[in-house]
Amino acid sequence: MFLKNCWYVAALDQELIDGKLLGRTLLGEHVLLYRGESGQVIALNDRCPHRGALLSKGRLEGDSVRCMYHGIKYDGSGKCVQIPGQEMIPPKLKVRAYPVVERGHFIWVWMGDAAAADPALIVDLPYLSEPNWKGIPAYLHYRANYLLIVDNLSDFSHLAFVHTKTLGGSEEYAYVTKPTVVERLERGFRVERWHVNSDPPPFHKKVIRDKDSKLDRRNIATMYVPGIFYMETLFAAAGQGAQTGNLAGAKEYRNCQFMTPETEGTTHFFWSYLNNFEGEDSIMSRSLLNSLIEGFMEDKEIIERQQQTLVEDPSFQPLAILADAPLAHFRRVLDKLIAAEQAGAPGQSSQPRATATVAG
Amino acid sequence: MFLKNCWYVAALDQELIDGKLLGRTLLGEHVLLYRGESGQVIALNDRCPHRGALLSKGRLEGDSVRCMYHGIKYDGSGKCVQIPGQEMIPPKLKVRAYPVVERGHFIWVWMGDAAAADPALIVDLPYLSEPNWKGIPAYLHYRANYLLIVDNLSDFSHLAFVHTKTLGGSEEYAYVTKPTVVERLERGFRVERWHVNSDPPPFHKKVIRDKDSKLDRRNIATMYVPGIFYMETLFAAAGQGAQTGNLAGAKEYRNCQFMTPETEGTTHFFWSYLNNFEGEDSIMSRSLLNSLIEGFMEDKEIIERQQQTLVEDPSFQPLAILADAPLAHFRRVLDKLIAAEQAGAPGQSSQPRATATVAG
Amino acid sequence: MFLKNCWYVAALDQELIDGKLLGRTLLGEHVLLYRGESGQVIALNDRCPHRGALLSKGRLEGDSVRCMYHGIKYDGSGKCVQIPGQEMIPPKLKVRAYPVVERGHFIWVWMGDAAAADPALIVDLPYLSEPNWKGIPAYLHYRANYLLIVDNLSDFSHLAFVHTKTLGGSEEYAYVTKPTVVERLERGFRVERWHVNSDPPPFHKKVIRDKDSKLDRRNIATMYVPGIFYMETLFAAAGQGAQTGNLAGAKEYRNCQFMTPETEGTTHFFWSYLNNFEGEDSIMSRSLLNSLIEGFMEDKEIIERQQQTLVEDPSFQPLAILADAPLAHFRRVLDKLIAAEQAGAPGQSSQPRATATVAG
Repeated sequence: MFLKNCWYVAALDQELIDGKLLGRTLLGEHVLLYRGESGQVIALNDRCPHRGALLSKGRLEGDSVRCMYHGIKYDGSGKCVQIPGQEMIPPKLKVRAYPVVERGHFIWVWMGDAAAADPALIVDLPYLSEPNWKGIPAYLHYRANYLLIVDNLSDFSHLAFVHTKTLGGSEEYAYVTKPTVVERLERGFRVERWHVNSDPPPFHKKVIRDKDSKLDRRNIATMYVPGIFYMETLFAAAGQGAQTGNLAGAKEYRNCQFMTPETEGTTHFFWSYLNNFEGEDSIMSRSLLNSLIEGFMEDKEIIERQQQTLVEDPSFQPLAILADAPLAHFRRVLDKLIAAEQAGAPGQSSQPRATATVAG
Repeated sequence: MFLKNCWYVAALDQELIDGKLLGRTLLGEHVLLYRGESGQVIALNDRCPHRGALLSKGRLEGDSVRCMYHGIKYDGSGKCVQIPGQEMIPPKLKVRAYPVVERGHFIWVWMGDAAAADPALIVDLPYLSEPNWKGIPAYLHYRANYLLIVDNLSDFSHLAFVHTKTLGGSEEYAYVTKPTVVERLERGFRVERWHVNSDPPPFHKKVIRDKDSKLDRRNIATMYVPGIFYMETLFAAAGQGAQTGNLAGAKEYRNCQFMTPETEGTTHFFWSYLNNFEGEDSIMSRSLLNSLIEGFMEDKEIIERQQQTLVEDPSFQPLAILADAPLAHFRRVLDKLIAAEQAGAPGQSSQPRATATVAG
Repeated sequence: MFLKNCWYVAALDQELIDGKLLGRTLLGEHVLLYRGESGQVIALNDRCPHRGALLSKGRLEGDSVRCMYHGIKYDGSGKCVQIPGQEMIPPKLKVRAYPVVERGHFIWVWMGDAAAADPALIVDLPYLSEPNWKGIPAYLHYRANYLLIVDNLSDFSHLAFVHTKTLGGSEEYAYVTKPTVVERLERGFRVERWHVNSDPPPFHKKVIRDKDSKLDRRNIATMYVPGIFYMETLFAAAGQGAQTGNLAGAKEYRNCQFMTPETEGTTHFFWSYLNNFEGEDSIMSRSLLNSLIEGFMEDKEIIERQQQTLVEDPSFQPLAILADAPLAHFRRVLDKLIAAEQAGAPGQSSQPRATATVAG
């Protein structure tokens, strides 16, 4: 059961080059994504209503697509515009079109009630388009339910054990740091965590000159339904007073991750890891891309095995520890939204807004 | 749910050489096919009733087969004739035998009530055994329900889009030609279609000398339940009056295709593509075999993906266009026969016969 | 449905070297097996109760194991002893521990009620630890229910057909020999079978000098629930009177095989094939290991195909022949024990004991 009336990332802009007809399953539905010759991105149900052939195996013609089984043609709104050998077009012969928005290299689609699809509801992440933030948008496929990835991002103590030699840096991270702020938001959570006087973690070490000095590290992680995550990371020289506001010389990252269900058991994982300190070549971005993939592979192994455990034994009830408070809040929020949607409530109506702040 | 009281092609004669014990699933049942030393082809249920071992992993002994788990032996009628170490043979210990007929390189079996298995009910395709018709019988395995292949053969407008560069020749075929005759038959349909003044399609071009002259092309396709298809194809010089009966110098093909369900989701596809104009070597037949495989692979990709669509979403209801009239008639006929069979009606009682002729 | 209150072989001792965390599914449960630094073998449920990660992907620390997702640590009794970043340990946060006994190179576990786990209930096979019996314990994985392997071992007439050229020696074995004694035991059966004046079978021929003389061969096979099998095999010179007690110069084997369900459809198969006539090098044991693997592969092919047949058609009812009497008795015994266990009866209460002796 997925939340339908919200925006999901469906693709990277670079996936829709050269008239590519991209067939992708989203929330269990086959969706065809393409950029028409007008430049507009179009999302249609990826199934010819005539005999069920895939439109993504068809042919792009302008902003239209032709099914290459019996030649039936649909325009960008899903309307049938030609049946070879037949004059009259039955009005029922049409394909569902999904609202689409292109923003900051990501293609967002709305899988629910099209009338409720307000682009203003897309979580605003300005650094995805600002030129001083550099990064390389990328994609990974997970054989796991998207919420297991959300869970993973809800507790950064896993950095200590899963990512010791990649994104984390030491097991100490789990023992000496704790969330300093946990905010329960109307549609998610926000967690702040400091690791002061620490060694630079391996991924960061690779892109800085001074590899020996201690740093104060701050992570502020924000998660919104359905699975929109961004983390503001900062490294400042240890002791200069970053915690009280002196950010001089700090190096910052913005980690944007978008979890889109493919099916109940698989996920499209999109991300961009941005930095504000590299020049015009992309050498640091490429190093960071490699580091992130290395780290995500560590997560992926654990999370995909977790998925198997849940499938094998659906009765398994995880036991919460204190660090699971954000995760538990997120699940409650999402369950409530899905229940409301199933009961016929209208779609998302306002921008995300905090409702409570709790010292961690 | 399959129609049981009818003949299905189970194998090619060339598959039963050298005492081969061929295990093949037909209509969801494991069947053992072999040619006994007497020359007779035998079809038995492919499971030893003792402990369920496969008889096709056993040993041929004369016209009998011995299970090689505990050595129990069955004759060609399925009767148990030996239990090593035991005198008395329990009468229950026997294997089901299926009626078999060998005809024109194909092995036909009857999976229903053996008492109703009249060889006269096999659709008569004389060119399969006539020496002036040349061809190479062949086999393909489909991961799709057999009726999706029947559907495919019911509307030849797909030649235009699926087989443009192989069996079809041009997209024009879908726009300028239409069935001229559609006959609804008691057990199937018959469709006639002309494409006058057309370029020779690629498969035909490969086996003729004059590759540039225009041709008049006629296809008459006939389909009978459960999935017996043949098409009479003719190419005559454009303008000589083939449509009004002047067939001088025409080159003809006979396309015989037999769809036999392996399971609900897979199909045995047998065919022979015959021509009446080659000499004694088989060079044209081999070229045509290659062309047909090339074309069938194009169908297979679409049809197997269609199968996935139906499995993923069993609620999908295809929307008919005008060209689907033969297909819809065939499905009705088959559904009615299966319903009657399930209700206990006797098997097929007469040769196929036309009941209506409708101008297309 | 498995019998829980009994001992199963879970591993070979050689599998637990070098601090290996062995994750293995037993009776459908994920079990972690390891040898702690104290030397003790420990079996825990292989799932961190926090978020379901595999403990077998964790880290050995002394006799404890640490989950490497969020760093939670459990001792050898399954008690949680550390949560990084959290003082208080919730009492519910613990892992199930299974009783374990190490004996004669095999690791036995008790998957049922721990209070009933009496090591005295392990079937006593002294030659597994006696120095004059030589052999190499080994493992095979079967894609079949463990009872199909039990069935296989219940009727040695299959030696004649399945293992003609490996363990059996001739098809004659099925025709001229029969069980001479069949004992129905409270928890299994015992079958004695002689093949007098016979050629040495291939596996034996490989390890003896005199390959031409006839031998009297005796097999006494014993099977106990849940799937504990041993066979006492003897080869004596033909005619010397082995059947009446003269065992001078006889060569003996002890075949120990343990079938442990992995899941309903897969099995862990452990064995050791011992002889009492080789010297201190292991050359004969290695030859016999190879011969046994060769023979087991012949069984495996048949049995795994049998499994498929049963899965495809669960309604299949095997038809018994006379040789199936031990098999049928074993199934009845096991079904009764499982039914009693499901109804809440206490576990195994006594050593295996014969209740009836029937001339075969």
